Amino acid sequence: MYYQLISQCTQALKNLETWLDKAEQHAAAKKFDVDALMTSRLAPDMKDFVYQVQSACDYVKAAAAWLSGQTPPKHEDNEQTIGELRARIQKTVAFVESVKEAQYAGASERKVSLSWAPSGKVIGGEDYLRQITIPNVYFHLVTAYALLRHNGVDIGKMDFLCPIDWISA
Amino acid sequence: MYYQLISQCTQALKNLETWLDKAEQHAAAKKFDVDALMTSRLAPDMKDFVYQVQSACDYVKAAAAWLSGQTPPKHEDNEQTIGELRARIQKTVAFVESVKEAQYAGASERKVSLSWAPSGKVIGGEDYLRQITIPNVYFHLVTAYALLRHNGVDIGKMDFLCPIDWISA
Repeated sequence: MYYQLISQCTQALKNLETWLDKAEQHAAAKKFDVDALMTSRLAPDMKDFVYQVQSACDYVKAAAAWLSGQTPPKHEDNEQTIGELRARIQKTVAFVESVKEAQYAGASERKVSLSWAPSGKVIGGEDYLRQITIPNVYFHLVTAYALLRHNGVDIGKMDFLCPIDWISA
Repeated sequence: MYYQLISQCTQALKNLETWLDKAEQHAAAKKFDVDALMTSRLAPDMKDFVYQVQSACDYVKAAAAWLSGQTPPKHEDNEQTIGELRARIQKTVAFVESVKEAQYAGASERKVSLSWAPSGKVIGGEDYLRQITIPNVYFHLVTAYALLRHNGVDIGKMDFLCPIDWISA
């Protein structure tokens, strides 16, 4: 379950690169600098597009690491351009895909520490995946998607969902 | 796994009621009719707030039904007010919570038909949960959240995530 659910989150990160392709096409058509989207926000007290992508990456990376008994690699939050964001996504995906299914053995028994947990508290592996990883990955990914849509980028639901493993009826 | 993951999606739906409380408080403070938010959109070619809530409800309801071998109850998409949306959420939660963990036995072997699937194709139970249910529930919930935040409602990440089952370190 851990491997499959984290792989699904990783796929969603990969899809983000398609959204960036479409952002670049939109910027070219409208003749604006695509990096202008990087600091876009939906509200003045909400974090910007770059943060949303960094954060989605970090929740996937952290889950792959902690649930397989590793310390997450440190990725500095210094991206400013769409090219740098692509590199952030790619190094996140490379790390997560380096973790093999067998390494998640025992994930349910792990306890994960979070910097913002109440004092003296941790979370069990399964609750971490269900209550922290999945909701946060999608929270930041969908916020990034919403920012692009709000700014006119021509992305749609299938750019968010695909691929889907259909089988014969 | 099915029961736990669908329960988490159901919890996220319940959290939506807290967001609606805060939307009402915001509208009262700013002296506008809270139902003005119901048709808000992030882009003219995106669906409105009411649709986002209906859709989140329907993906949770459908998963609970199909994966437990039932046909989902039909809920008409006729909500126009925040009160009607609360009722939609509540009847969705009531149905999903009527499905017991044991009823998901065999969910992995089920095949689910979707109206928008390619011709002659269905999806297996596990892929349905991972590739359709979870991403779509969060897609519509986070879009609803983004709409409220964009309109000034004072909701935050913990209104989205809670409750979290912390344990002693």
